[in-house]
Amino acid sequence: MAGTAGQVIKCKAAVAWEAGKPLVIEEVEVAPPQAMEVRVKILYTSLCHTDVYFWEAKGQTPVFPRIFGHEAGGIVESVGEGVTDLAPGDHVLPVFTGECKECAHCKSAESNMCDLLRINTDRGVMINDGKTRFSINGKPIYHFVGTSTFSEYTVIHVGCLAKINPLAPLDKVCVLSCGISTGFGATVNVAKPLKGSTVAIFGLGAVGLAAAEGARVSGASRIIGVDLNASRFEEAKKFGCTEFLNPMDYKKPVQEVIAEMTNGGVDRSVECTGNIKAMISAFECVHDGWGVAVLVGVPHKDAEFKTHPMNLLNERTLKGTFFGNYKPRSDLPSVVEKYMNKELEVEKFITHSVPFSEINKAFEYMLKGEGLRCIIRMED
Amino acid sequence: MAGTAGQVIKCKAAVAWEAGKPLVIEEVEVAPPQAMEVRVKILYTSLCHTDVYFWEAKGQTPVFPRIFGHEAGGIVESVGEGVTDLAPGDHVLPVFTGECKECAHCKSAESNMCDLLRINTDRGVMINDGKTRFSINGKPIYHFVGTSTFSEYTVIHVGCLAKINPLAPLDKVCVLSCGISTGFGATVNVAKPLKGSTVAIFGLGAVGLAAAEGARVSGASRIIGVDLNASRFEEAKKFGCTEFLNPMDYKKPVQEVIAEMTNGGVDRSVECTGNIKAMISAFECVHDGWGVAVLVGVPHKDAEFKTHPMNLLNERTLKGTFFGNYKPRSDLPSVVEKYMNKELEVEKFITHSVPFSEINKAFEYMLKGEGLRCIIRMED
Repeated sequence: MAGTAGQVIKCKAAVAWEAGKPLVIEEVEVAPPQAMEVRVKILYTSLCHTDVYFWEAKGQTPVFPRIFGHEAGGIVESVGEGVTDLAPGDHVLPVFTGECKECAHCKSAESNMCDLLRINTDRGVMINDGKTRFSINGKPIYHFVGTSTFSEYTVIHVGCLAKINPLAPLDKVCVLSCGISTGFGATVNVAKPLKGSTVAIFGLGAVGLAAAEGARVSGASRIIGVDLNASRFEEAKKFGCTEFLNPMDYKKPVQEVIAEMTNGGVDRSVECTGNIKAMISAFECVHDGWGVAVLVGVPHKDAEFKTHPMNLLNERTLKGTFFGNYKPRSDLPSVVEKYMNKELEVEKFITHSVPFSEINKAFEYMLKGEGLRCIIRMED
Repeated sequence: MAGTAGQVIKCKAAVAWEAGKPLVIEEVEVAPPQAMEVRVKILYTSLCHTDVYFWEAKGQTPVFPRIFGHEAGGIVESVGEGVTDLAPGDHVLPVFTGECKECAHCKSAESNMCDLLRINTDRGVMINDGKTRFSINGKPIYHFVGTSTFSEYTVIHVGCLAKINPLAPLDKVCVLSCGISTGFGATVNVAKPLKGSTVAIFGLGAVGLAAAEGARVSGASRIIGVDLNASRFEEAKKFGCTEFLNPMDYKKPVQEVIAEMTNGGVDRSVECTGNIKAMISAFECVHDGWGVAVLVGVPHKDAEFKTHPMNLLNERTLKGTFFGNYKPRSDLPSVVEKYMNKELEVEKFITHSVPFSEINKAFEYMLKGEGLRCIIRMED
């Protein structure tokens, strides 16, 4: 790989030229990594709702042409000045948020919200020089959340790359770089259900099922899945869900239904939809005295969380989490090890696989709500 | 003391005959304790806002005639059937909430909200038979929160009595049976500030100052006191407050002022007013990534807590607490020991002292906002 270090690489990338239009596989030029940057050969990437959300660009600042993609696994091709933690050949997972290891958040044991590299969906350039590393005939193609993994090669800040066990199969663990870790970490790092406890999971998409998987791994005895789509339940059983609730089946608020089912409320809840009503239900359905509700889903910008303060005074806890409270560089390698140790089951999240040339099929599956994760094979 | 066991005791009690009217010292008859009850000779009691609130009975169900009082220290006179944890001569602190040691809350390491003996301000009778132990010429006089310590003798459920070190001076540690432990525990048990951290305290009454004392004992480097009354600050310095903020002095919300003073927010906040605006400010003034806000003050029944859910998603934690998360019987003795070890300073909370005959003066001090705690000496 040393042959390409310091050189512009020409390779294929799936470019989004316009909001909501199918991606086009183009030949792009990928500049060498600058200070604290790393050029990565992507082997596998998967599609996450966040890619689709910003590709649709409904209501956000549109940044086009852009290369999406942020759940992926790859191998370091070359490193820029000052990069000492990674070397060519290292196996890495790119992450949409980073860990500079220098700021107050990185130095805090409690936070993973790095000041320097925290997710910024509006930025389409690298922070070193405010420019892109992708171009077509000199025309810049913008980055997405610092990762842009829908390209055979991409340039990423070293702080957004987790170095993982080279024995881990990248076609499986690539899905750990975003949604699965977000849901799993929300449960195991934040909600922390005790063995034998009851847990409610709101939203049974990939993130919610990963949260359920976290509850299963933690030894929860009852895992109540809540979703508006009853067809989700069959799949949810594989992730440990023992019961299912569709709020539409009841006249009373779902938090009251859950309280009746559980003698006063669940021990823990994890909200993975971002719907404000679900957030409030997820909080109000936990037991007084010890209940902990964890919010994961990203709300609408005008949403307002409302509750009677006595619900808090009665010793309930309400917490939010971001990327499952994992610090990308410090903690993600250990999530990969959980997979290697067969503690965390990743295969069941992977329902589809397509060659890079058919990347638009992955978008179709997601838009139709089919399956959970579609792996895109870059080398096929 | 055995001479009175099993007998009705005639003694003095301060009876509230009507809402808001001065208490009247009367001779009352105190029946012997029934199953799981204990008769206690009260030596010192103090006045807490909650007594005044229910004595004023503005908006709550009025329960009169009633004997108020719940912050106190005394000595066991006799015990009822089934009481094995306490014996005549034991030194005890009565508590307005209890610990049955049998319910799900008592068995949970996380909760102190006992199902059987949780505070019930509407109940004026003992749970064993639904009757009072106090009477005047056969007319029942109602209890208050199971303690009714404004009486030389009172009958209390064994689950609402903490057995303490007999060497502890009851004229000092009596104040630990409610407000001081509530505030102190909110900080040390729930907010848990790290050494060197920043803490904001909303409301600088006795509970808020106890919360500040908790922050001082925890080694917080900056303790920002927030109160609408600037004259509180001088006193607050004794409890560790290093800075003072009056929200009325600023056009912008106090949470923004605090964020500017602290490079993004305090590490911990404790809300001790019950005002809904203060609750929201206390939550929104904590730093993203790691901030924890703890609600202590009891809100108006129609209050609504509102915030943008992104304030939670950015890894802030919102928790409520009740009696500082202390389990009355299991944990309160250790708070007394903290005083005995000179870790927790109690004397500075005691600003007044009156003989029992002048108990109405204690009400006057509190209504005027003078001082913090007034000790009522029962034997004077």
